[in-house]
Amino acid sequence: MLSDEASANCPLPDFGDDERISLAHGEGGRLSRRLLRGMLKPVQNEFLIGLPDGATLPVSSGKLVFSTDSYVITPRSFPGGDIGSLAVFGTANDLAVSGARPRWLSLGLIIEEGFSTHELGQMIASIARAVRVAGMQVVTGDTKVVPRGAADGLFINSAGIGELVLPLPGPDTLSQGDRLLVTGKIGQHGLAVLAARESLGFDPAPESDMTALWPAVEALHAAGIRVKAMRDATRGGVAGILHEWADACDKTMLLESGSIPVSKTVRGACELLGLDPLHVACEGTMVVAVPSEEVSDALRVLRTVEVSNEAVEIGSVSEKRMAPVAVRRSLGQLVPLDEPSGAPLPRIC
Amino acid sequence: MLSDEASANCPLPDFGDDERISLAHGEGGRLSRRLLRGMLKPVQNEFLIGLPDGATLPVSSGKLVFSTDSYVITPRSFPGGDIGSLAVFGTANDLAVSGARPRWLSLGLIIEEGFSTHELGQMIASIARAVRVAGMQVVTGDTKVVPRGAADGLFINSAGIGELVLPLPGPDTLSQGDRLLVTGKIGQHGLAVLAARESLGFDPAPESDMTALWPAVEALHAAGIRVKAMRDATRGGVAGILHEWADACDKTMLLESGSIPVSKTVRGACELLGLDPLHVACEGTMVVAVPSEEVSDALRVLRTVEVSNEAVEIGSVSEKRMAPVAVRRSLGQLVPLDEPSGAPLPRIC
Repeated sequence: MLSDEASANCPLPDFGDDERISLAHGEGGRLSRRLLRGMLKPVQNEFLIGLPDGATLPVSSGKLVFSTDSYVITPRSFPGGDIGSLAVFGTANDLAVSGARPRWLSLGLIIEEGFSTHELGQMIASIARAVRVAGMQVVTGDTKVVPRGAADGLFINSAGIGELVLPLPGPDTLSQGDRLLVTGKIGQHGLAVLAARESLGFDPAPESDMTALWPAVEALHAAGIRVKAMRDATRGGVAGILHEWADACDKTMLLESGSIPVSKTVRGACELLGLDPLHVACEGTMVVAVPSEEVSDALRVLRTVEVSNEAVEIGSVSEKRMAPVAVRRSLGQLVPLDEPSGAPLPRIC
Repeated sequence: MLSDEASANCPLPDFGDDERISLAHGEGGRLSRRLLRGMLKPVQNEFLIGLPDGATLPVSSGKLVFSTDSYVITPRSFPGGDIGSLAVFGTANDLAVSGARPRWLSLGLIIEEGFSTHELGQMIASIARAVRVAGMQVVTGDTKVVPRGAADGLFINSAGIGELVLPLPGPDTLSQGDRLLVTGKIGQHGLAVLAARESLGFDPAPESDMTALWPAVEALHAAGIRVKAMRDATRGGVAGILHEWADACDKTMLLESGSIPVSKTVRGACELLGLDPLHVACEGTMVVAVPSEEVSDALRVLRTVEVSNEAVEIGSVSEKRMAPVAVRRSLGQLVPLDEPSGAPLPRIC
């Protein structure tokens, strides 16, 4: 969610009298330039002046992290966010969980002919608010228009560059006894999008957890916590990450079923839909692995930051068992947790 | 065009028994990982090991250039290239004309459900060959699959990072008497794509000029040529660039009609189709502006490099006249050159 402060004072995009995007808006001529100038108002900064082919970025010696994602989510707006804010936070969080302070963002828009300039303006305003929250700048971009039927409304690609602050040993270094934390309630984003798409009418409607994770990473770094691995639980959910980690370190990830934080709304909706919240995507929640002696400090630090103030321990790394990921139920029995496969929740990012 | 050397020894992608891309290939689970591992074989390098969320890049103090483009071209294959090589050269050239040595590339694929893995493999192999020619590495990426009908086959976004080597004063510094050069015959790419799309049956079929421009930029830099502005003549063609430059410096760009290099094939095809080659896109040809005292050195240097060995002077910057861009015909009369507008050639990149 975006703070009121961030949404204030943000100039609106301006498309003049153009109500719909036409193919001519994508052809590199006068209309393209008018579209771009209108779109860029809310995100304007020194890098975008004169619309150069590329942004020239001053860097200091060190390490940068570079990441990209395309966003094809449907519906484009849902409780807690839209494709615009998602394109910012999704890529900003990929940088953050790599230990990098998010800095610069590129945006590549693919727009279907006939798309409403009003909705495009809303998405651009949403991008502008999100880059402020994420502490980033949009420094370069591209717009393509495709004929009606060649794309579903609006796709956004973003690529981000961040400065590496907290190098991580990585999931292949996980060892027996390391602890697994999550920074908040899981499954919120996937459920919010699914409920909006299928008009499921849950009351209250599940809301996406979408926001910037960097403040949590920065707090861990400032406190000197020795984080071994971090990952935001997007496509594939917490289960997807833990399967990747189990594969990387050749151990079993063992979760305690009672400690997995799930809101009442998400738990109820998942039961109705036959989904496991561990398979459902988050967009502002990450899994963090720390050595056991760091776990209480890590939780204390994470809980001082708004985005991670509900951080809890959910399990640990154990010796390799039959299943790469397993959940210990309340009576002690271990139940294997499947790897996400098939398409239970398409187009949630 | 790609050299034979670059196409040799390139491992092929491997998709196992999957003949078609399914939605499950995009869901972040086991199938996604299998798809990615198969795709990455031809472009493998140290940054892609373990498929991290972001690539960690070592940088030295200085300036980087960051640029992005999405590619939605149809048809996806045409004489001289395909959407894969275009996604590499297009972004590499945006960096090169910004004076930056192309280094690192991200790839974001949006694939329509049902897309042939055979064709995907060809595109990935083409990307792999092109990054070698361009001197770049694919360091991070993303794959999304959308349902049938939600996209037209395959869209590719690429974002590139290059190291600034040759800072350019920029088109706002152009002054009366500066000379305008092009590095080769114009309009080849747009005509090749249009002829392939519409099965126009020209003989010989026009072939895209697609290739890496960096060697030409590097040669200008090495020779100490004081380049004022450079731009690859993509969407909007040479006319589009000259209109932007005229706008930036508030002068008129004056071309000599007899000196504009156009192949017989492109000239003939343009006459038939009612197009001006100055409006038709190139993908391996750029416009270069230099002070008049540098023009002979610049041409000599450019002609030593394969990509620009047909470089010629096409005109100069003049005092501001009625039209921002004008062409002097053989009998001396000046004809204004329209800014590209409308959509004469959609989806040529």
